[in-house]
Amino acid sequence: MAKTSVLTPRSEDFPRWYQDVITKAELAENGPVRGTMVIRPTGYALWERMQREVDDRIKAAGAQNAYFPLFIPESYLRREAEHVEGFSPELAVVTHAGGKQLEEPVVVRPTSETIINAFFSKWVQSYRELPLLVNNWSNVVRWEMRPRIFLRTTEFLWQEGHTCHATHDDARDYARRILHEVYEDFMVNVLALPVVVGRKTARERFAGAINTLTCEAMMGDGKALQMGTSHELGQNFAKVFDVQFTSAEGSREYVWQTSWGASTRMVGGLIMGHGDDNGLRVPPRLALVQALVLLVKDGNGAREAAAKLADELRGAGVRVALDDRTDTAFGRRVVDAELKGVPVRIEVGPRELAEGNVTVARRIPGTKAPTSLSSVLGTVTAALAEDQQALHDEALARREQGTVDASTVDEAAEAAANGWARIPWATLGEAGEARLAEQSVSVRCLIRPDGSVPEDADEPGLVAIVGRSY
Amino acid sequence: MAKTSVLTPRSEDFPRWYQDVITKAELAENGPVRGTMVIRPTGYALWERMQREVDDRIKAAGAQNAYFPLFIPESYLRREAEHVEGFSPELAVVTHAGGKQLEEPVVVRPTSETIINAFFSKWVQSYRELPLLVNNWSNVVRWEMRPRIFLRTTEFLWQEGHTCHATHDDARDYARRILHEVYEDFMVNVLALPVVVGRKTARERFAGAINTLTCEAMMGDGKALQMGTSHELGQNFAKVFDVQFTSAEGSREYVWQTSWGASTRMVGGLIMGHGDDNGLRVPPRLALVQALVLLVKDGNGAREAAAKLADELRGAGVRVALDDRTDTAFGRRVVDAELKGVPVRIEVGPRELAEGNVTVARRIPGTKAPTSLSSVLGTVTAALAEDQQALHDEALARREQGTVDASTVDEAAEAAANGWARIPWATLGEAGEARLAEQSVSVRCLIRPDGSVPEDADEPGLVAIVGRSY
Repeated sequence: MAKTSVLTPRSEDFPRWYQDVITKAELAENGPVRGTMVIRPTGYALWERMQREVDDRIKAAGAQNAYFPLFIPESYLRREAEHVEGFSPELAVVTHAGGKQLEEPVVVRPTSETIINAFFSKWVQSYRELPLLVNNWSNVVRWEMRPRIFLRTTEFLWQEGHTCHATHDDARDYARRILHEVYEDFMVNVLALPVVVGRKTARERFAGAINTLTCEAMMGDGKALQMGTSHELGQNFAKVFDVQFTSAEGSREYVWQTSWGASTRMVGGLIMGHGDDNGLRVPPRLALVQALVLLVKDGNGAREAAAKLADELRGAGVRVALDDRTDTAFGRRVVDAELKGVPVRIEVGPRELAEGNVTVARRIPGTKAPTSLSSVLGTVTAALAEDQQALHDEALARREQGTVDASTVDEAAEAAANGWARIPWATLGEAGEARLAEQSVSVRCLIRPDGSVPEDADEPGLVAIVGRSY
Repeated sequence: MAKTSVLTPRSEDFPRWYQDVITKAELAENGPVRGTMVIRPTGYALWERMQREVDDRIKAAGAQNAYFPLFIPESYLRREAEHVEGFSPELAVVTHAGGKQLEEPVVVRPTSETIINAFFSKWVQSYRELPLLVNNWSNVVRWEMRPRIFLRTTEFLWQEGHTCHATHDDARDYARRILHEVYEDFMVNVLALPVVVGRKTARERFAGAINTLTCEAMMGDGKALQMGTSHELGQNFAKVFDVQFTSAEGSREYVWQTSWGASTRMVGGLIMGHGDDNGLRVPPRLALVQALVLLVKDGNGAREAAAKLADELRGAGVRVALDDRTDTAFGRRVVDAELKGVPVRIEVGPRELAEGNVTVARRIPGTKAPTSLSSVLGTVTAALAEDQQALHDEALARREQGTVDASTVDEAAEAAANGWARIPWATLGEAGEARLAEQSVSVRCLIRPDGSVPEDADEPGLVAIVGRSY
């Protein structure tokens, strides 16, 4: 593979490499208001594909999309005590509109539990309407002190699901269903990012929830990224907003609720989870362009051959783009494709074509080989399947190598300098968790020894996954 | 068809009928902050289908999606004089965030020309990057004095496209291409709403544009609804934000630009363009559920037959839902399906089934007939195609009947009480337009006598389409 010097090497300065990838691959830029971002077409295409895949899974889990307003009366936020305490410091407030001062200031939504529950209280009447399962794709605003593009931005794009159930058990099951069938399935099988799914400690729980479940991925520098969360809200918001239903037996009951979300931060996870010193590496299942047919230069029918090859691949169901801009230097176009992480690149040039060959370059393993025209289709489809798996396996191997078993708090803190630690929760406990926090190390989640998600934080034998995080 | 008395009849009070449909069909509700709305799942499904269809067309026209921030520094808005004058009265302003007063107040985007051009000025360097074609799906905020759900809301959802071109001609062609290939095509062929496409007068032009093209549809009460607009911005924003490129000849030039948008107001257009006294009528091509299989009651294998029929239709590519909730009264479910405008309803009940029949009810013509099980599939697919066309033709006939030729300003004003007038622009002129405005009547657009879109407002023989509008 051609050496490119456009990026700071990851080993030299990981945060700078991350920023370099975002800039050079034209994924995003900082907006003029501090902490906001412009998502450029290449970056947005990644998000759009993520949306489509997550949305399909949300619908398969029975939820319907809806839209709730951006503006929430300030008073709504104050109704749930823990919730307002969690979000107050981050609020953006509209005080003037239409040329006048507003009577009641309006908050730009940081999350929508309050406003959605104000409507649920009107919509939910009878057990027949339950479960009520809605999801909202939107932008939210949380004023960030230390913004970082894609990972922690003042405005970000996300989906937030909100559900009402007749029983505690039903809500608990649904929160888990979303965790596994929507988030874990998408992250493992599409993003090719192995995630540890587990339960947050009380300290790390969502403001207002009784239980938070999470998907945590290890990034290229050994830090953790929380990729998606699914909360059981119990009856906290139901009581505050009076969301009650008449049961089959005729009694009035508060609903049990869940909420769950994943955001543009996943784009950051994709970059830091799979990127290398040449740029992004996009898993084939996610890639908008899976195969780029690149015309090296004109001559010998190369232009026609490239177009024909693109059509052939497209006809076989491969997502293809054709780059025949021969007025831009070939090397520059190759570097660009590498930066943007296109899984397979097929270089079509007059010289090779005379021998009936093209070059197939695979971004993920970083290989490049002459391939006969007749075998390109088979080579490309095989490469897309293999490389999807290879990317996942590479990330999994890194996580396994980067996770050590610790038996003391000090050992766990030490391990977190470069990766994760597994430590018995009985050994760590809330006191140990507080000590780790002083060193900016946190419990990412609690899991069972077999890796499954605990029903309860008090189960014996739980293991804490500990690390630094974004 | 069963008479339902859930809605105010259209002939009695059209605005109340409109509000009734929105409430009873569970499309949307007013949000707590004045002028905002909650789009409920049934309403959002309409918008989601619109988005998908419009987005496909935008991509086919070569534009790529991107995302620009919600928050714009107040100073950006002030840079283009006409633009700020047009939007200032409607702005929502964030003055506090993160617990502190902001040094510079931040505006919630009412439209994004300013912030997008601030980035275009960095991205556009050479003629090689042109045309630059981007589109942004987002929410925008315009503080409305007289809000009306879907039609004029403080916050609405839309797409805004923004493009840069090397020449005036290229920008003009692209603005037209979007008008015809994206908006007109979608509105006519998917929404089944015939639209008049034409050119806005100077008075009705977008603030900051040199030309605004529009799609205007006639609603059930004879008023006009502007469904989508495509603007030529000339070099106005390019000069203010310094968006220049180096031409092939090496000279520095300002780009020529377009912007174009369509919004959730189209949902209002759908309701008022096709609804009747029983509720919404959704064109089959738009409908998320094209055919609803409705189990009347259990017995005689009806439940199994309904499920099998649903599968069969789905297998044939029909978008199907199965309603087997026999614990809810049959009549209520029928009324609900009518209110929501499901194009075809197939009622499966034990008695009819004994004779090998089901009932196929078509929402658009309002017919209902027993149909043998073996012919259901053919009947349904034929009905979906026919009714798509019938809905369009009905709306077209209404528009034609509701449009009169006027030869004086007074005649035009009189015609606008119940519909539209066609009047020579030479007769009307800006003075006549101002007189009409005193009576809340406006020129919806200028067209050529053959119905095509004028290149220039000064062409001889232009016809003004005049009416009241939403």
